[in-house]
Amino acid sequence: MLKLGILGNGTVGSGVVELVRKNAEYIKRRSGTEVVISKILVKDMDKHINNHNEEIITNNIQDVYSEDVDIVVEAMGGLHPAYEYIKSFLQQKKHVVTANKDVVAKYGRELAVLAEENNVSLRFEASVAGGIPILKPLQECLAGNDIKYLMAILNGTTNFILSKMYNESMKYEEALKIAQQLGFAEANPDSDVLGYDSARKLAILSSISYDEKVDWEDIGVQGITEIDDIDILCAKELNCTIKLLATSIKKEDGIYASVRPVLVPIYGYFGKIESEFNGILLEGDAVGQMFFCGKGAGKLPTASAVLGDIFDVIENKKQRSMLIGNKKAILKSKLSEKAKWLLRIKCQNTEEILSRVKESFKACESFENKDWLQNEAAMVVEAVNEEYIDGVVKELKLLPGVEHIKKLIKVDNI
Amino acid sequence: MLKLGILGNGTVGSGVVELVRKNAEYIKRRSGTEVVISKILVKDMDKHINNHNEEIITNNIQDVYSEDVDIVVEAMGGLHPAYEYIKSFLQQKKHVVTANKDVVAKYGRELAVLAEENNVSLRFEASVAGGIPILKPLQECLAGNDIKYLMAILNGTTNFILSKMYNESMKYEEALKIAQQLGFAEANPDSDVLGYDSARKLAILSSISYDEKVDWEDIGVQGITEIDDIDILCAKELNCTIKLLATSIKKEDGIYASVRPVLVPIYGYFGKIESEFNGILLEGDAVGQMFFCGKGAGKLPTASAVLGDIFDVIENKKQRSMLIGNKKAILKSKLSEKAKWLLRIKCQNTEEILSRVKESFKACESFENKDWLQNEAAMVVEAVNEEYIDGVVKELKLLPGVEHIKKLIKVDNI
Repeated sequence: MLKLGILGNGTVGSGVVELVRKNAEYIKRRSGTEVVISKILVKDMDKHINNHNEEIITNNIQDVYSEDVDIVVEAMGGLHPAYEYIKSFLQQKKHVVTANKDVVAKYGRELAVLAEENNVSLRFEASVAGGIPILKPLQECLAGNDIKYLMAILNGTTNFILSKMYNESMKYEEALKIAQQLGFAEANPDSDVLGYDSARKLAILSSISYDEKVDWEDIGVQGITEIDDIDILCAKELNCTIKLLATSIKKEDGIYASVRPVLVPIYGYFGKIESEFNGILLEGDAVGQMFFCGKGAGKLPTASAVLGDIFDVIENKKQRSMLIGNKKAILKSKLSEKAKWLLRIKCQNTEEILSRVKESFKACESFENKDWLQNEAAMVVEAVNEEYIDGVVKELKLLPGVEHIKKLIKVDNI
Repeated sequence: MLKLGILGNGTVGSGVVELVRKNAEYIKRRSGTEVVISKILVKDMDKHINNHNEEIITNNIQDVYSEDVDIVVEAMGGLHPAYEYIKSFLQQKKHVVTANKDVVAKYGRELAVLAEENNVSLRFEASVAGGIPILKPLQECLAGNDIKYLMAILNGTTNFILSKMYNESMKYEEALKIAQQLGFAEANPDSDVLGYDSARKLAILSSISYDEKVDWEDIGVQGITEIDDIDILCAKELNCTIKLLATSIKKEDGIYASVRPVLVPIYGYFGKIESEFNGILLEGDAVGQMFFCGKGAGKLPTASAVLGDIFDVIENKKQRSMLIGNKKAILKSKLSEKAKWLLRIKCQNTEEILSRVKESFKACESFENKDWLQNEAAMVVEAVNEEYIDGVVKELKLLPGVEHIKKLIKVDNI
């Protein structure tokens, strides 16, 4: 018999309990072992008083320690005390499976080393892209590849909001409110809407892909809070939609890594990824381009990934610990490639400004005669690199009449 | 030191040699072992006389046996002698990695049992969908799911031909010829164009997904040889394209499994999967819908999958042998669900026939006033199940004036 301890009984924790019980017979048949849930750690006992699991629920971590479980599933979320608990269980030579991207992005390397030292597993497939198998495929199936780049939609909350803004012409605040009412967004949505959640997941993905330590705090991050209805209308004119894309590109002199809203073609890989779906596009030198998509959040999709990890631990599939890469990555957040950009310039003298912009870029297509553009020039320009366009923007900002300038990257071939 | 024996030096075999050598340093760093290619079995020594690998090339299988290799990569293709060689190496307690779907589809279970008995690994990720990690994600990451269905483009040759027919208005014979000239199709293309290759891969995928033994010979197969320009024009009118889809659906009373040309929306999952790309859509009860796409064939994509398997063997990741499922699946090839169909009826009396068709189906939309429809009625009908439409077709065939009837399924929500 194999004993599981579940830390947290929210969306993920309760999903794991449900899925493990549903699959009890299959797990036994497959692994020859009965797997039972021995303890569930909760914050507030009162909330679970009429719960089926009454006998195994506790709000005291000591009860889980003393239960002598074999595998711990950490599904509490947040940095503390999740980090301390994971650390302590690894030191007690317990395998740990976690869905916690905050902890993995911040303490992943330290904990992976600790697991290695204690000869136990630390697994975290569910921490990135929910139910989509991506860490194991990257780490194992694609191990013979140099990964050239990753581009991904990794956050369901922002994707839900952007879908609402695009499909139903909602304003950002309105869409956010609905997301909060439906439980897709937290009361304090900053971690999602400012792009930090995506940056944490991108750091985990990139560290595994490039075998270097990518710190999420070093990633250039721009959220979706500034996206407005004019951006959406411009996107529609261009047969594009706007998605919060997490991108990393391996370069000779470092890794370009950013999270930012991007204009993407409606009929490409990302255009149709809606709401809670995530999508990951990558290129390996041997395998070429590859795309994965599926549910990136939710009770059972996340539990599916956790259960996959539990199977690995039960079947004793030892793996080279991920995130052990010691070399700290040099990160760049300015794109050094030629790219197209949507440029919006709030000003009274639109004609004059537009002709100034045209002097600076070889290619420049402006939106003409749009009644939704008031005191504003909007155009798509092509710049040799991001530094160049930033330089132009800086100069333009100094011109009389210019009130505000905004730029959004447009990527065509995805 | 770990010794590899490579059987076959064609596209796949030479790709594996190239990729293993390119990654030599990384493999050593990751696994702590130097991996060398000790023997390469070829058919014709003369062809390889100026080859860099001259010293390790042989056309005698005994040389590979006596080399005492640790892992054998079978990349010969075809049933014989590949099957006999694999069997013999497993009996000698050598791990085997193969890219051979013919052997896996036919002898997979027997060989998996043999590997199990000899306590060695038999791996075959590359046998389905080339570089796309799919067997391991299904078998391990998604192990907690009941897989409800699989729909996939699994054959690059037919996909190339259909892309040419759709994008460049080529006729089937013309597109096939180009595929042959470019090396995408064999001189005898039957295995690809008649759908057998897809059926073999679908059998492997389905056996793993449903844990039952799915025999590829029992799968209902319809190839692309009958697809003509009128089908393509009808598809375009419907905002669809035509793809050879391999589909299996788990049902209470068995598994529906078929390979056939399907009208799919141009902007859905499969519409944009072109040429050598493969795509796999599946649904698990926990994880929901999920889609994988990438290169399904070619030298390095296939080698990428083989190398992933080699890493597993080196790192001694024992896994419950796939395909061990003993229960033989009951297969059905007639769709029992309501579906839309494109119906084309060659006849002189189109008006008369059309009104007869309209009596038989509640929903029927015919193509009107198309100058490319000569002596032919074409329409999209909705039928409660395939048996029903087949019954109607049978009756229609008896009507005076009707020369030929053709039906193609149209699937909207993918």
